[in-house]
Amino acid sequence: MTLTAPGHRATLDAALDTIRSRGYWSPHPEHPKAYEGDGAAAFRARCGQRFALGQPGVDGWVGGEVSPYGFPLGIEYPHADPDVLLPAMRAALPAWRAAGPETRALTCLDVLARINARTQEFAHAVMHTTGQAYPMALQAGGPHAQDRALEAVAHAFAEQTRAPSAAGWTKPQGRREPLRLAKEFHAVPRGVSLLVGCRTFPTWNGFPGLFASLATGNPVLVKPHPAAVLPLALAVETAREALAAAGFDPNLVALAPERPGEGSARQLALREEVRIVDYTGSTAFGDWLEQHALQAQVFTEKAGVNTVLVDSTADYRGMLANLAFSLSLYSGQMCTTPQNLLIPRGGIETDAGHKSFDEVVADLAAAVDGLLADEARAVTLLGAIVAPEVLARLAAAPGLGEVILPSRALTHPEFPEATVRTPLIVALDAADPACRAEWFGPVSFAVAVGSTAEGLRLLRRTIRERGAMTVLGHTTSPEVEAALTEVCLDECAQLSLNLTGGVYVNQTAAFSDFHGTGGNPAANASLVDAAFVTPRFRFVEVRRPSA
Amino acid sequence: MTLTAPGHRATLDAALDTIRSRGYWSPHPEHPKAYEGDGAAAFRARCGQRFALGQPGVDGWVGGEVSPYGFPLGIEYPHADPDVLLPAMRAALPAWRAAGPETRALTCLDVLARINARTQEFAHAVMHTTGQAYPMALQAGGPHAQDRALEAVAHAFAEQTRAPSAAGWTKPQGRREPLRLAKEFHAVPRGVSLLVGCRTFPTWNGFPGLFASLATGNPVLVKPHPAAVLPLALAVETAREALAAAGFDPNLVALAPERPGEGSARQLALREEVRIVDYTGSTAFGDWLEQHALQAQVFTEKAGVNTVLVDSTADYRGMLANLAFSLSLYSGQMCTTPQNLLIPRGGIETDAGHKSFDEVVADLAAAVDGLLADEARAVTLLGAIVAPEVLARLAAAPGLGEVILPSRALTHPEFPEATVRTPLIVALDAADPACRAEWFGPVSFAVAVGSTAEGLRLLRRTIRERGAMTVLGHTTSPEVEAALTEVCLDECAQLSLNLTGGVYVNQTAAFSDFHGTGGNPAANASLVDAAFVTPRFRFVEVRRPSA
Repeated sequence: MTLTAPGHRATLDAALDTIRSRGYWSPHPEHPKAYEGDGAAAFRARCGQRFALGQPGVDGWVGGEVSPYGFPLGIEYPHADPDVLLPAMRAALPAWRAAGPETRALTCLDVLARINARTQEFAHAVMHTTGQAYPMALQAGGPHAQDRALEAVAHAFAEQTRAPSAAGWTKPQGRREPLRLAKEFHAVPRGVSLLVGCRTFPTWNGFPGLFASLATGNPVLVKPHPAAVLPLALAVETAREALAAAGFDPNLVALAPERPGEGSARQLALREEVRIVDYTGSTAFGDWLEQHALQAQVFTEKAGVNTVLVDSTADYRGMLANLAFSLSLYSGQMCTTPQNLLIPRGGIETDAGHKSFDEVVADLAAAVDGLLADEARAVTLLGAIVAPEVLARLAAAPGLGEVILPSRALTHPEFPEATVRTPLIVALDAADPACRAEWFGPVSFAVAVGSTAEGLRLLRRTIRERGAMTVLGHTTSPEVEAALTEVCLDECAQLSLNLTGGVYVNQTAAFSDFHGTGGNPAANASLVDAAFVTPRFRFVEVRRPSA
Repeated sequence: MTLTAPGHRATLDAALDTIRSRGYWSPHPEHPKAYEGDGAAAFRARCGQRFALGQPGVDGWVGGEVSPYGFPLGIEYPHADPDVLLPAMRAALPAWRAAGPETRALTCLDVLARINARTQEFAHAVMHTTGQAYPMALQAGGPHAQDRALEAVAHAFAEQTRAPSAAGWTKPQGRREPLRLAKEFHAVPRGVSLLVGCRTFPTWNGFPGLFASLATGNPVLVKPHPAAVLPLALAVETAREALAAAGFDPNLVALAPERPGEGSARQLALREEVRIVDYTGSTAFGDWLEQHALQAQVFTEKAGVNTVLVDSTADYRGMLANLAFSLSLYSGQMCTTPQNLLIPRGGIETDAGHKSFDEVVADLAAAVDGLLADEARAVTLLGAIVAPEVLARLAAAPGLGEVILPSRALTHPEFPEATVRTPLIVALDAADPACRAEWFGPVSFAVAVGSTAEGLRLLRRTIRERGAMTVLGHTTSPEVEAALTEVCLDECAQLSLNLTGGVYVNQTAAFSDFHGTGGNPAANASLVDAAFVTPRFRFVEVRRPSA
């Protein structure tokens, strides 16, 4: 363990530069071949075993994860008595606080370096809890999640060092001696931070809060989704190893898996020791946390309804291909997947001539079909359906309107028990209330709007009422672009325009793109801005006269 | 109006530098002679008149302020129909948002320059609503409040410009063409910001939230305390003038005085348009806001119990003189005034030899008496009692224990109707629950503790249970200093040590000292840190492919 390793400090400095410049940068390669180790073997070795963490207060073992690819993991995790574990975590706080922002940041970077070295293992853990296909599980669950974590550490370091650790203060007093004070400024943590993990992106959505809290001095208790424990258990294990190696109490990071039906997130979130909560998941529980965990700072990402407004395009093929990919990726089980595609009833102008509404939706359906024609390739894009609720929505959605593209069941060549489905597209009228609800999963609506102006109004209403993580517009008109921008500034939603190549609306890049705004009902936080870290600590000043 | 005046930009830059270095700086002189104009005449000209603001939705006139110096102000202010006023404020938002962080900051500096030019008028307005003596009303209500406002503007500007307004993003793709995006980052406001003003420091406590919200693009509705309307009405008037002069809608800042018993803060704070609330006042209403105004970001400063721990001193006379001043200033009606003076029952070591508990308290009483011996000078320090509740507490407090120093009634030479009182000091045992409640006003307790260690435990318990805006320690022992620091870091309270000269625990300097931490029950916000401004806006990104 070399905390002062120039590598870690240089990485932190590069991250600090990039969150200011917001250009492209990552220290974590994306390509699977960059990562050594047999992740599949490491994953299989975990299955059927107890996952010991050496935490205090273990009062039983819990498990029950089932891979969306069709087999039980058989892993048991230590269940913790919060009355033992939380005081142990609190006891670890003072030394971590005293370490200061830089040592905390560099220790977090050491945790991340160790996580990065285990990327192949994380990939299989993410794949077999979320149902993501392996390439996505590796990238989104590995380097992209590590990027978001590093971004959070950089913001935490930057914000904690806005005040100097010490300053002199000399106030002139006319002919009398000036007043002189010596001042110290300490960044102090709030208390225990609770991470309530999500099922679909346990590391990508979980790491930012975990690392933002840890880097600001708060012990972090990780309550994973009961169906996606392994990725976060690996993270907790790695963090505890790194912390111990750096001479800190490993109880600064601990796991709190729940018993079936325990609902422990609700209990833990109201504990007096818990002063920060990070949550990704349903709107109902996110709203509950915001309304009840008033002793804590609560950061939520909930549900939204993402819209694409199609007004016109200079690259019809590119637009269709880009949309087809966005709808197919992880079977639409991303909080950023477009749901409502608003298309004028009278059609659109394109580089390939005027296209009627029917032509646009038929061409989009064909683009999806084409993308997924090769089943062996299709499963590496679609992954598996994560939960029966998603399947139930997919089964109900064809009844809502005219089916433009039926969903097909595919057979995974390696995991025949996996539930694999292609996207469904249903045509709806703009007046249909169905398009104002969230249909999480491989369900999209081609919504006929009377005009682009009507589409803008529906977009505004949808963001205001339901929230949105993403908005995508296709237009060749500067006026429509300006109107789209105005709606997104008014309603506080992230806007992508005219994506026709290899960048997809579902994807954001750490250090450059913000994920969510925190300003519409889909989320009260953004990954990662200063507002995501500044409430996690406070400045305490000590001042005394100086000579 | 010269928005691009190099003066304003240079002032902003100096403020930006100083919030980083945290040395001494202020562009606003403290001395009354620095300010021209006949403030008393301007104040008298307001009295007995209607205070027109040109706001929409006026549905009546309200007033009723009475100077703590013994006369009614007779001013009437326009009462607003929120169903008219709030939409007008919302309508002013887009152009203010589009102006961007720098134009908003410079416009705010223009508001402040205009307020600064009216400092004498503000001084009399503050004096005759709060009861502060003129010197304090001028300094705290004028330049010090202006400093805090400028500090808030500087933080707002800094945080909104953490992301560049535009950035290019180029991601290598191996042998393929790189992915290229052009990105814009817009700081967008949350909505209408509500300032619920306080009675004792309407400008000092009100300006930070007002200017932080305005500088981040939010229209600000000012709901003053019904007994202290005038200072904030002057601020609203000045802001509307400056905004109009800069070509913006003056409805970006508006006044909402309440009818007697209307309780309009409660109604306004729950309005859907209101997305930010700033509040200084009672714990009960602050807690209510935090628990109910969940559609808004709520920033509160509530009540606390401030402690002085006296362990030992190298300057006994200086300590006594400093404490005497702190207890006397504005008759203890500051949220930062010490209440509980913890003194070991066995006495303390000093540069003047060992002093018993009885000696320390007697010497402190003598120091207060000496400071206030000259009645004409005393009233310029004490000011007037602001409200009957303060007087009632002062009347009840002698019954709590042994009176060390009785409170005396003084007659103000210029305002014989003013209620002027000197500080009361009562001796209590550490076990007495009275010292764990707040006795806002000229009431302090000399609390006998068994030892410094017991004092540290009582300090910790008091901060944790009741909160504290300030903590002061007197000690010559490095171990006690370390222990005091540890308690304040653990419980998140601002600590001053060994103040024996011209710096007082009640006073903080903008740009350098934090006022409150936001981390104990006395307040959920600190004046001014990044956490005070970052939740007031969000970043919205617009990204599109670039060539």
